[in-house]
Amino acid sequence: MPDPIVIILMGSDHDFSIMKEAGDILDSFGIPYEYSVASAHRSPQKTVDLAKTAEDRGIKVIIVGAGKAAHLAGTVAAWTTIPVLGVPIDASLGGLDALLSTVQMPEGVPVGTMGIGKSGAKNGALFAIQILAVSDPDLSLKLHQYKARLAREVDEKDRKIKENRRLSV
Amino acid sequence: MPDPIVIILMGSDHDFSIMKEAGDILDSFGIPYEYSVASAHRSPQKTVDLAKTAEDRGIKVIIVGAGKAAHLAGTVAAWTTIPVLGVPIDASLGGLDALLSTVQMPEGVPVGTMGIGKSGAKNGALFAIQILAVSDPDLSLKLHQYKARLAREVDEKDRKIKENRRLSV
Amino acid sequence: MPDPIVIILMGSDHDFSIMKEAGDILDSFGIPYEYSVASAHRSPQKTVDLAKTAEDRGIKVIIVGAGKAAHLAGTVAAWTTIPVLGVPIDASLGGLDALLSTVQMPEGVPVGTMGIGKSGAKNGALFAIQILAVSDPDLSLKLHQYKARLAREVDEKDRKIKENRRLSV
Amino acid sequence: MPDPIVIILMGSDHDFSIMKEAGDILDSFGIPYEYSVASAHRSPQKTVDLAKTAEDRGIKVIIVGAGKAAHLAGTVAAWTTIPVLGVPIDASLGGLDALLSTVQMPEGVPVGTMGIGKSGAKNGALFAIQILAVSDPDLSLKLHQYKARLAREVDEKDRKIKENRRLSV
Amino acid sequence: MPDPIVIILMGSDHDFSIMKEAGDILDSFGIPYEYSVASAHRSPQKTVDLAKTAEDRGIKVIIVGAGKAAHLAGTVAAWTTIPVLGVPIDASLGGLDALLSTVQMPEGVPVGTMGIGKSGAKNGALFAIQILAVSDPDLSLKLHQYKARLAREVDEKDRKIKENRRLSV
Amino acid sequence: MPDPIVIILMGSDHDFSIMKEAGDILDSFGIPYEYSVASAHRSPQKTVDLAKTAEDRGIKVIIVGAGKAAHLAGTVAAWTTIPVLGVPIDASLGGLDALLSTVQMPEGVPVGTMGIGKSGAKNGALFAIQILAVSDPDLSLKLHQYKARLAREVDEKDRKIKENRRLSV
Amino acid sequence: MPDPIVIILMGSDHDFSIMKEAGDILDSFGIPYEYSVASAHRSPQKTVDLAKTAEDRGIKVIIVGAGKAAHLAGTVAAWTTIPVLGVPIDASLGGLDALLSTVQMPEGVPVGTMGIGKSGAKNGALFAIQILAVSDPDLSLKLHQYKARLAREVDEKDRKIKENRRLSV
Amino acid sequence: MPDPIVIILMGSDHDFSIMKEAGDILDSFGIPYEYSVASAHRSPQKTVDLAKTAEDRGIKVIIVGAGKAAHLAGTVAAWTTIPVLGVPIDASLGGLDALLSTVQMPEGVPVGTMGIGKSGAKNGALFAIQILAVSDPDLSLKLHQYKARLAREVDEKDRKIKENRRLSV
Repeated sequence: MPDPIVIILMGSDHDFSIMKEAGDILDSFGIPYEYSVASAHRSPQKTVDLAKTAEDRGIKVIIVGAGKAAHLAGTVAAWTTIPVLGVPIDASLGGLDALLSTVQMPEGVPVGTMGIGKSGAKNGALFAIQILAVSDPDLSLKLHQYKARLAREVDEKDRKIKENRRLSV
Repeated sequence: MPDPIVIILMGSDHDFSIMKEAGDILDSFGIPYEYSVASAHRSPQKTVDLAKTAEDRGIKVIIVGAGKAAHLAGTVAAWTTIPVLGVPIDASLGGLDALLSTVQMPEGVPVGTMGIGKSGAKNGALFAIQILAVSDPDLSLKLHQYKARLAREVDEKDRKIKENRRLSV
Repeated sequence: MPDPIVIILMGSDHDFSIMKEAGDILDSFGIPYEYSVASAHRSPQKTVDLAKTAEDRGIKVIIVGAGKAAHLAGTVAAWTTIPVLGVPIDASLGGLDALLSTVQMPEGVPVGTMGIGKSGAKNGALFAIQILAVSDPDLSLKLHQYKARLAREVDEKDRKIKENRRLSV
Repeated sequence: MPDPIVIILMGSDHDFSIMKEAGDILDSFGIPYEYSVASAHRSPQKTVDLAKTAEDRGIKVIIVGAGKAAHLAGTVAAWTTIPVLGVPIDASLGGLDALLSTVQMPEGVPVGTMGIGKSGAKNGALFAIQILAVSDPDLSLKLHQYKARLAREVDEKDRKIKENRRLSV
Repeated sequence: MPDPIVIILMGSDHDFSIMKEAGDILDSFGIPYEYSVASAHRSPQKTVDLAKTAEDRGIKVIIVGAGKAAHLAGTVAAWTTIPVLGVPIDASLGGLDALLSTVQMPEGVPVGTMGIGKSGAKNGALFAIQILAVSDPDLSLKLHQYKARLAREVDEKDRKIKENRRLSV
Repeated sequence: MPDPIVIILMGSDHDFSIMKEAGDILDSFGIPYEYSVASAHRSPQKTVDLAKTAEDRGIKVIIVGAGKAAHLAGTVAAWTTIPVLGVPIDASLGGLDALLSTVQMPEGVPVGTMGIGKSGAKNGALFAIQILAVSDPDLSLKLHQYKARLAREVDEKDRKIKENRRLSV
Repeated sequence: MPDPIVIILMGSDHDFSIMKEAGDILDSFGIPYEYSVASAHRSPQKTVDLAKTAEDRGIKVIIVGAGKAAHLAGTVAAWTTIPVLGVPIDASLGGLDALLSTVQMPEGVPVGTMGIGKSGAKNGALFAIQILAVSDPDLSLKLHQYKARLAREVDEKDRKIKENRRLSV
Repeated sequence: MPDPIVIILMGSDHDFSIMKEAGDILDSFGIPYEYSVASAHRSPQKTVDLAKTAEDRGIKVIIVGAGKAAHLAGTVAAWTTIPVLGVPIDASLGGLDALLSTVQMPEGVPVGTMGIGKSGAKNGALFAIQILAVSDPDLSLKLHQYKARLAREVDEKDRKIKENRRLSV
């Protein structure tokens, strides 16, 4: 198994069902990654260690899912200069608290924030791949193919919904 | 000057005009304190050091003001077991982002959160004094006197507004 | 049974399943406490009596859970100088109404506000213990042990999620 | 000066410029009233006394303006059975906190809530008059005349805006 | 059956399960009332007729429940000078749209707004009774008895929760 | 002056500076229109009359601006079957109350809602023209020309910003 | 089957159960239409093509349903001058994100926005018919009949609720 | 002047004062970039062309600022596979509409979203640099130096605020 170049980090294993969406995308693109659980508040030293050592371990991007007062992505971003992507998780208030806690970072320490929940987790992985693809033409090609497939899937749905309509008239 | 037993912490000196409300209250109760500037995101090591050493230095309560994705109170609470009070500051969205980022802490690591802005800062100092007064009868007496004065001030305002009305009829 | 030093107050027994989280934490730290039901609006005299007599009965902290226009914590805080902790309960609008009604106190009368719901109730108890520990080194030690256990639990979750990943590859 | 039958209550004299709108309306309808300042949090005994004695003093309606965690109307309603009208005042968050704190009362203790700010204060007075008019045909007649005048004022504005348009073409 | 003096109005029979809370309270106080269904948007003439004729029919208060862009209470208030109470119903966005559409009336045409949903409906009826009691000492007495019963019910809940605690220790 | 085919309606002349944006667009397309002031709440009969007679007078579209509990567009839509466009105006809460009061119409009675404020008013006029253009090829041509001009204006801004950058390097 | 004059467009077939409400209304008025699936983000070329060719194909109105960052209606409106109606769909945050993303269009490119969800979809179809009826007296007649039926349905509900009440007394 | 590798895109030159923050950061890191103005709605072809040709022109990252229904970042992301960073601009509702319109992207097409306004623009540039630094050790070194300087600046502010306090005591 090759060394991971992406970490999918979450504050609690409760969030695994959400963040697994990110792992599945990375698997499908052949990107080696690891899951980690570390809490900004309950295991702060572990979080700091993970963030500080990531670059030297060869990690290129860290994807972070957290809910409520979601400080985890920001805390990681405070201790590293590699890109940190935040995925707000709906644990209360529809995820609005997690979104604001993740995205409203002060100047100097950005977090690239995704949408709330599963689609945000999936997009976090895709955005990590887009970042890696900046210097990897093969990966860039795969992204073009992925994008083309998205469009074909929409075409297929469009065809079906039109056919159903024809049959029902 | 006696050693401080309260820290008034803020992420930026921009927040000083807000947090000074807390200092003025502590001064009026004769509580020794210090101001500190440390950012959860821009100077994370300084923040961790401040939080980890506070208890051994004799600090009893830390009052923390921060805006936007206000992680500072939560970060400090992650590294200490002394009470941390959070004051959300309105730097955007009326302070709703700072409020949610401060108050919605995960279980295990509480932040005692005050209202948004100057009155929150003032109340942070009063709440710190209430905490100290739990084991300090003299301070408790001063709080009773303060509370009585609040009521008298309202009485005075009531008297004036009624007199103005009488004069205007 | 020793005399209680903490009151866990709620406006209705409907909120007991939430506030029991606070009681369980206090039990685990060996803090004597009592549950009370009193409504700021339906039994205001009982609420005033509870708040006014608390200090003389030896109560050190009052933890208050309430939903909607959650006035209970603020009402108690109006009549006592001991620390009052507010736990907003989601009875409508995701608990945003209860949060704002609890936290946005006017200057002079603070309520130390926790997050919405069960984790807020649990944190209310932990914060009460932090307050008591300011003058109780034994309790402070227990808090350090509790904090260390939180970190170990995260470690354990991290180990499991990494192992599952290894097995699934 | 006849005895007041309406109280216009506010938590602080800062709110007088808002609540004066209510007084001006009551003046124009010839309803005797008094202004009072009492705080639910800073002068709770005064607030309780005002609420408990109001009915016996001949007060028929209490109009209450308050901002932030606006507990004042609800606190008054807890201690009396005469109608209490709440006017949320914008002291933060556009007044949304005051609105929710005023209107989301638990079952059993209603507050008839008006809109935020000056127009809410004015409407509070009009609603008080509507309440009084339920058993006062003369007052009811005045309300009909007032309503007719509102419509005429709109007619006049409509006439002017149409004339301006004609002149500008 | 005596002629109704209160109308409980709703825009659709879907809202009956909510508004029945109001009817049950009025029944328990012996206030004659009628239910009506009329829509501000789908049956505007019926709504106008109801509002315009209410006073002459001897109606003293109209309680109106509506959801979403809840215009019904405001529309009724536009056509009558008797007090109109609004009950926002949660048909979307947690009822926030209905609350704002009901409460934020322009100056000149107030709606006395209750909280969202069932407790708001119940409170609408209680507030109607408070209005009627302004000129009805018997009804006022019943309200005092109702208020005393509310307090006793809280006492009973408090007693039970304390007993359960004692048994569980 | 030809008979108007569009009405620009507002609840108060305070809103004229906003709604004039709509008039200016209609002028530039040569669409005859009239301004009207009528309030859903203060002059309900005038509003009903305007709505009921509009179609027979040859009116094709009604553009309605209103703030707060913005019922005016919905009230007009209740009484006519011609398209009604709503422009929420920010009179409080950033216009969120007006937006929700305008857009969240019950099924059966739509209001085509625009964005908040001046750009919403301008877009209301453009949308009215789009509606008229469905059966008017000349108007449709003008819309195509307008759209092309919008794109050219962006081109021009792009050119300038690039040139400024070049000069500043 | 006659050529469609309305397109009901959605970003994903997940939204079909919502948007079918629009199709059913169009069927009941005998308006030929087609369903389409195209995504502003996953199949942008298809979306552009649909929008650019619509007018020449004889399409008069496009009804667009989308959730979250609902760009689809705005994207279509960018490429055509025929009226575009937006239906925000609740895929997160109660649909507030979709509502704001649909309605807050910049000046120059309006989207006529409906309410959130199924009633918005139904109203989208009715509003499309209102647009078509501007130049089609037969359709206008049908709308008058539809409106009359809405009122009769409310009458019927009113009759039933009054009868139930009579029976229960 | 070297060819740009970053585009700073905005929908209108009104947003230049915000987006200039991004340009200044890129200048200070020596990253060649260009400003562009293109609107998703008013100049959609220009936007599509910019997005489709960016990768072939050697652009590595696109930073996009937009307000209200901020579709621009999402539209660009639909047409390219290089990373797109979104900066919500406050043109209404405190920027909440722009934030939700930017961040809540459907799965498959991510936008890395920054905070609202100037600090978001600045962070957009820093995040672009972090992306470029993934494959550029020199740039990574500069980021480490920048991060160290941020910490030193906080140290300096801390020193000053402590000194001021000392002087004032």
